[in-house]
Amino acid sequence: MQIRTGIGVDVHRLAPGRPMTVAGLLFVDEPSGPEGHSDGDVVAHAACDALLSAAGLGDLGSNYGTSDPRWSGAPGVDFLTETAQRVRAAGYEIGSVAVQLVGNRPKLGPRRQEAEQVLGEAVGAPVSVAGTTTDGLGLTGRGEGVAAIATAVVHRA
Amino acid sequence: MQIRTGIGVDVHRLAPGRPMTVAGLLFVDEPSGPEGHSDGDVVAHAACDALLSAAGLGDLGSNYGTSDPRWSGAPGVDFLTETAQRVRAAGYEIGSVAVQLVGNRPKLGPRRQEAEQVLGEAVGAPVSVAGTTTDGLGLTGRGEGVAAIATAVVHRA
Amino acid sequence: MQIRTGIGVDVHRLAPGRPMTVAGLLFVDEPSGPEGHSDGDVVAHAACDALLSAAGLGDLGSNYGTSDPRWSGAPGVDFLTETAQRVRAAGYEIGSVAVQLVGNRPKLGPRRQEAEQVLGEAVGAPVSVAGTTTDGLGLTGRGEGVAAIATAVVHRA
Repeated sequence: MQIRTGIGVDVHRLAPGRPMTVAGLLFVDEPSGPEGHSDGDVVAHAACDALLSAAGLGDLGSNYGTSDPRWSGAPGVDFLTETAQRVRAAGYEIGSVAVQLVGNRPKLGPRRQEAEQVLGEAVGAPVSVAGTTTDGLGLTGRGEGVAAIATAVVHRA
Repeated sequence: MQIRTGIGVDVHRLAPGRPMTVAGLLFVDEPSGPEGHSDGDVVAHAACDALLSAAGLGDLGSNYGTSDPRWSGAPGVDFLTETAQRVRAAGYEIGSVAVQLVGNRPKLGPRRQEAEQVLGEAVGAPVSVAGTTTDGLGLTGRGEGVAAIATAVVHRA
Repeated sequence: MQIRTGIGVDVHRLAPGRPMTVAGLLFVDEPSGPEGHSDGDVVAHAACDALLSAAGLGDLGSNYGTSDPRWSGAPGVDFLTETAQRVRAAGYEIGSVAVQLVGNRPKLGPRRQEAEQVLGEAVGAPVSVAGTTTDGLGLTGRGEGVAAIATAVVHRA
């Protein structure tokens, strides 16, 4: 059995008035959200990069160029669904994906299992979602942005 | 065989006069140590989060809520011992855990193998401990805090 | 089958006039490059640390001490070639390595596959190379430094 692992980090700047979409969920009470031409869903994006690198398929930029109108502004979950299809089309089975949200907000805890269900359905394999803060330090601690880090494991029968 | 991987990052602020407990070891000559209601052992905490996410069991916050007196102020190694038990109770064998300390201090090198022994006994599987600095940059380079990043792999027979 | 995973982060400060060597490639048009007594190839260094921790062999510092003239100033790719040999000498097969460059520069995209070929030959197993930015935030977003994060999976037959 051939086993491969992947890694992905994503960071987005937070801006007032933007919708906070993270881990496939909209957090309606948040005063700010990620900037960007997409929904800035750092959890979904990090998961995509982890899956793509595990399968040796490049990264978000090489797969979904900003010049492609099909993907301009697409929700993070759509990237994740398409990414899982590309990983399987390359001949890999997906073992699991694990993503950790790093930031002060939103509070993932109360909706963690809901996030795992949404992302797990997109991937078609277990997706673990976790959260942590950085004790008020760094770019996420100062509230300038939100980050996520993901890993994935895939294998070929 | 079902294979799953996990990830965990932890950051704690350093404060003068606090004991420096990292990777299950007390570094008695350090002038500062992690703040927090626990011992702030970022290496043990990151390892816990990596194991929990690999097994799909949530994160430190969802497992050991700050309102639970049993875990208030508990050493990081105790969390790690309990976490490994919960991972096995969920039906997984632990392949390994790898943790990297990111920060200027303490210097792990001379006690790296001692740390691996202490954490490996807590987990009941190999735990690799490594260290790096960030060339004086960022929250750890400025000495504001100490960070750790971990990954784990588990499998079901 | 015994499966183990590893993790590695590396950060180097950028300085004007230094050659920009990243992922085993020289980017000749870059105005700055990593400082350090080595070439500061964060992608190769993070990959080394991920492999070493996966195999339980310590880290860059414990393997290639700064006092060893053999490794002083050595290219990152040489460390990676030697590291892969040490991992195999310890009895492990390498499943894969995945590395993500985190920073504004250099732009890896046009040379991503070239990087994967160079690093893959050094390791003797698939190496995925990806890139991301941090939306102008943090030490890499401000252009103070360049970072990389890697994971690896190894196994024993």
